[in-house]
Amino acid sequence: MNTFGKNFRVTTFGESHGPALGAVIDGCPPGVEISEEEINRALERRRPGIHPFSTRRKEEDRVRILSGVFMGRTTGTPLCLLIRNTDARSSDYEALADVFRPGHADYTYQVKYGIRDFRGGGRSSGRETVARVAAGAVAEKILSGRGISIRSRVLEVHGATLPEEMEREIADAARSGDSVGGIIEITATGCPPGLGDPVFGKLDALIAMAMMSIGAVKGVEIGDGFAAARMRGSEHNDQMDGSGFLSNHAGGILGGISTGAEIVVRIAVKPTPSISREQRTIDTAGRETTISVTGRHDACIVPRIGPVAEAMLALVLADAFLGRQMLRSWVPGSMETL
Amino acid sequence: MNTFGKNFRVTTFGESHGPALGAVIDGCPPGVEISEEEINRALERRRPGIHPFSTRRKEEDRVRILSGVFMGRTTGTPLCLLIRNTDARSSDYEALADVFRPGHADYTYQVKYGIRDFRGGGRSSGRETVARVAAGAVAEKILSGRGISIRSRVLEVHGATLPEEMEREIADAARSGDSVGGIIEITATGCPPGLGDPVFGKLDALIAMAMMSIGAVKGVEIGDGFAAARMRGSEHNDQMDGSGFLSNHAGGILGGISTGAEIVVRIAVKPTPSISREQRTIDTAGRETTISVTGRHDACIVPRIGPVAEAMLALVLADAFLGRQMLRSWVPGSMETL
Amino acid sequence: MNTFGKNFRVTTFGESHGPALGAVIDGCPPGVEISEEEINRALERRRPGIHPFSTRRKEEDRVRILSGVFMGRTTGTPLCLLIRNTDARSSDYEALADVFRPGHADYTYQVKYGIRDFRGGGRSSGRETVARVAAGAVAEKILSGRGISIRSRVLEVHGATLPEEMEREIADAARSGDSVGGIIEITATGCPPGLGDPVFGKLDALIAMAMMSIGAVKGVEIGDGFAAARMRGSEHNDQMDGSGFLSNHAGGILGGISTGAEIVVRIAVKPTPSISREQRTIDTAGRETTISVTGRHDACIVPRIGPVAEAMLALVLADAFLGRQMLRSWVPGSMETL
Amino acid sequence: MNTFGKNFRVTTFGESHGPALGAVIDGCPPGVEISEEEINRALERRRPGIHPFSTRRKEEDRVRILSGVFMGRTTGTPLCLLIRNTDARSSDYEALADVFRPGHADYTYQVKYGIRDFRGGGRSSGRETVARVAAGAVAEKILSGRGISIRSRVLEVHGATLPEEMEREIADAARSGDSVGGIIEITATGCPPGLGDPVFGKLDALIAMAMMSIGAVKGVEIGDGFAAARMRGSEHNDQMDGSGFLSNHAGGILGGISTGAEIVVRIAVKPTPSISREQRTIDTAGRETTISVTGRHDACIVPRIGPVAEAMLALVLADAFLGRQMLRSWVPGSMETL
Repeated sequence: MNTFGKNFRVTTFGESHGPALGAVIDGCPPGVEISEEEINRALERRRPGIHPFSTRRKEEDRVRILSGVFMGRTTGTPLCLLIRNTDARSSDYEALADVFRPGHADYTYQVKYGIRDFRGGGRSSGRETVARVAAGAVAEKILSGRGISIRSRVLEVHGATLPEEMEREIADAARSGDSVGGIIEITATGCPPGLGDPVFGKLDALIAMAMMSIGAVKGVEIGDGFAAARMRGSEHNDQMDGSGFLSNHAGGILGGISTGAEIVVRIAVKPTPSISREQRTIDTAGRETTISVTGRHDACIVPRIGPVAEAMLALVLADAFLGRQMLRSWVPGSMETL
Repeated sequence: MNTFGKNFRVTTFGESHGPALGAVIDGCPPGVEISEEEINRALERRRPGIHPFSTRRKEEDRVRILSGVFMGRTTGTPLCLLIRNTDARSSDYEALADVFRPGHADYTYQVKYGIRDFRGGGRSSGRETVARVAAGAVAEKILSGRGISIRSRVLEVHGATLPEEMEREIADAARSGDSVGGIIEITATGCPPGLGDPVFGKLDALIAMAMMSIGAVKGVEIGDGFAAARMRGSEHNDQMDGSGFLSNHAGGILGGISTGAEIVVRIAVKPTPSISREQRTIDTAGRETTISVTGRHDACIVPRIGPVAEAMLALVLADAFLGRQMLRSWVPGSMETL
Repeated sequence: MNTFGKNFRVTTFGESHGPALGAVIDGCPPGVEISEEEINRALERRRPGIHPFSTRRKEEDRVRILSGVFMGRTTGTPLCLLIRNTDARSSDYEALADVFRPGHADYTYQVKYGIRDFRGGGRSSGRETVARVAAGAVAEKILSGRGISIRSRVLEVHGATLPEEMEREIADAARSGDSVGGIIEITATGCPPGLGDPVFGKLDALIAMAMMSIGAVKGVEIGDGFAAARMRGSEHNDQMDGSGFLSNHAGGILGGISTGAEIVVRIAVKPTPSISREQRTIDTAGRETTISVTGRHDACIVPRIGPVAEAMLALVLADAFLGRQMLRSWVPGSMETL
Repeated sequence: MNTFGKNFRVTTFGESHGPALGAVIDGCPPGVEISEEEINRALERRRPGIHPFSTRRKEEDRVRILSGVFMGRTTGTPLCLLIRNTDARSSDYEALADVFRPGHADYTYQVKYGIRDFRGGGRSSGRETVARVAAGAVAEKILSGRGISIRSRVLEVHGATLPEEMEREIADAARSGDSVGGIIEITATGCPPGLGDPVFGKLDALIAMAMMSIGAVKGVEIGDGFAAARMRGSEHNDQMDGSGFLSNHAGGILGGISTGAEIVVRIAVKPTPSISREQRTIDTAGRETTISVTGRHDACIVPRIGPVAEAMLALVLADAFLGRQMLRSWVPGSMETL
């Protein structure tokens, strides 16, 4: 299943070392102004090589809009966004053709499909997220036109919460051929109430799916999240007065529907599985061996996950926004803050 | 959106105080032996009143299978599972017709739909989960026939990890007209490798959606979850030898596909929002008021969420199992542990 | 797949001789006034026994609304519509447990599922359409509130086009233990332009699917249909002037999107396969045998298909109407007749 | 909605005069041998200019496989098939920017979206079908590996049934600046029983949708189709003996499930709407005008629709085949001809 969304449907395709990656957006409303330059700016934020200790792969990551835009505006027909792979050194990966890298999808893809594109992880590579960011840029354009803005920040790297400590954690890990994970917070402000649908289309359920679909993410929480499990109802409930909610423990969502308050999401990112330290593993014939993953890898993927998580939140919100439009024109006076 | 799943599709319906709740299962394979008694046993586990401090509403919660089963076996046609409401005292709720209970979906439903069934929370009531548990019982029957079993246990209540401490936390909260939340772990053993699909159909992404679709859940994690954010790659990666994985930090899923190891999920449950302590709120006209939610409410919903979370995991796994079957008969020799 | 629609999603369930049949409607907008009486009136039109030569099975066919309606109005949550089977004489069908009736789904269900509810055709019975008509009544209520009305009429029975000739054809067939088919035209007036989506969501494509999903239907055409194949472009094109379209050869749809003109659909209904004349067939063990289908069967199902076809058209249009609403509130000034 | 299928999902994108058209196939099973050359051969069959009287646009129509294939075989990840537009003379169409061509989607797109790519019909152009044929080539490769083959033939052109008469009809129409339609029969042989699902996933319902989604198609029939409406049950029913069905009036489908007999579909194709004869129409400001559509157009589109209809049938059957696989490995001994 390579499609995400119900109203604003994004299908991604492409492998790490194939000719190109891309996304098709079906359901994008007409009249949205969008240019390749705007999408390129979003791609620039997740690009390898702009963070210290980041992968040294140097991709241009420039998008071509192949369809769905006419004279600078979307037409209501599907957009195909294409990003060509230019710096894909497949030869680096020949050695990995027959061995499973720990913490990667090599083993599970081999078992499931009986065949896999082993070059750089193929479809399971983090490089796939370039297509999500491109599609997310279109979603963010729609949302920003409605006053909704999305941001992310790194809260923790390997437990460190201060920038200089985070950098030291990454440097320490890199030096010892290891890697570290971290926590990111993603927020959306300006969301109107009424986004999301009961029961299985809850906004928080869709956000959780969206975030967990990012390869390295192992946990998702909304509002107070796991801390809520250690709170009492009187602490956690968001009381109201005439001016609105007096707190936001819920993270902007009640009963799966946005309240109008800021939407607050946090995700746990595991340490990059590609490390140069020797690890035990098996090969495709089931024989025991060891592996040291060399090549151009991030010692910490956390900073680059931020733009991807923002893109995924944008996809969820654009989809929910369109769903809300459907009802809004149906029910006079609905969807307004009381 | 009241439907969950792609291959094993479950649609639930019904309100807390309407005539009945239920689920329609579309895509259930033929030949599965299932009886009303088996489903009733599953319903019994989530029933109000069987835990101390649980709601005193006394529902029979007995299912009728209205379709899809012939001579004790499923026929491949949709099953309708119906549970009638018998002890629904709507009069308790008349007072709540015009006021929004903090922490509940009252406000967001009113804003979104301009109308709501205020009796006991209507569709947003936890009572909706009775239909999920009924459908989950059918899914679990399918899975158990393939050697897969699902369990849950309460890890924490308001920070307490020992049973007697948990009970004291609940009792303390109840005495002060308050409530507490907690953490539940759900596991599945016996899962074959190959469950789940890249990229947006990842098994962990679907599990996250499934869990977060339960009203009170505010966080989901897989395997080491948030703890992974504080680990190094060399600690978190699950190395392999000829006998399989040497650890299970990943929680049984790599690249969104099951590895064959135990699937491990944890969820954060918020404290029950219905508390008798006075809280500030507004009414449907936007006027400020206060509310004290009386009636038959759980001071801690955590123990009753366990069977619901198990049911949701069963729905995800049954769906993924059917998807895996499709490929398995396609690719000779695939899907077997190497 | 027992669900129809994308925005207005209808899932039906139930077998001819099970306890009940029904439909769950997910995505019904809030605020629609609907009562059991209104739905019952729609059911009455397709009821067995109200047409001459119709099946003598006497069903009450009364609906219960189990959810989704509060104080006479829909709430935006799923409606479950339940119709109990009251006059299901299963004993009539015991003889058919092991033999395949020609022209029925007995053989294909047995081959596909390895098990089937043989009583009255089980799920493949025309009785399943009672659930479609119930759901269609809700869709028609939505549409009529927007000025859209749907009608059907029998154009032909066994080639006869005059009512008295049609009746004679049916009587002749009945007398000789045989059956006859016919052609029905279904029209929708008052449709605004803008219903339907390119490319695979074309309004005519969805109508074709909807109509062909009715058991006895073997052909569907829109506007001039098959006659268009024998026309020239200059005859078939609908020219326009300032007052609108000057003809309606297209049947109200261009490029898969409604034009605002009347939507015109015709369907071919095959002769009822249940006939008392002896036919050759095989049994479940593959042995040759003969069969004479006795019992309470229509010699001509055509008049009873009309309300079902109307219901299916209503489902398609309600779904498309909701999709159109989504865009309409997006694009100022769109969707109006130029 | 630009996606077709449930298991084998095809999303198309692209406009007549944009940079490229293409298709993304999601759900293609792994291990299928496929090359650009094979797809190009399929594209060649629908190419403009290879039939007499066909459009003189000279497209290369060569596909690039951008993803999902590794070392000549599919990997289970999405295939992106890209066809660049090379001979798109947009300048021909500037004159049509403000006027609606009769019989085309110009009017409905303008009304629905408030914006349209007017160059050659944009998304609503017949050129979009090049992407369907490319995806269909992959589906046909899957099917042919299982012994299923699909063919089409032109039965009628403007009523003529003999080849030389058909050519004369086309020539006559071309000479008078007009166009003609026709009827095509598409058949699939070698289909196993068990393809298709009740109730809304009936194989014939999906075929009807697939065919009617082709722009010029105004009617679809299965087996005897509209002729069945003039038959008696005793004529239409396909009786059986130990060797199988004794006739095939049903066109290979009973109760929406394939019987194992040949699948027989016929479609009605309207005359090409682009004609040079003067027609009345309006412009985007609602002013009356006349139009004579010049340029490179087919006087008869029928021969070129054949490969498109074959492709659509291949998509339906590949999808149904995968669905059948899911059940087949579930139910031992099912799906075999009795």
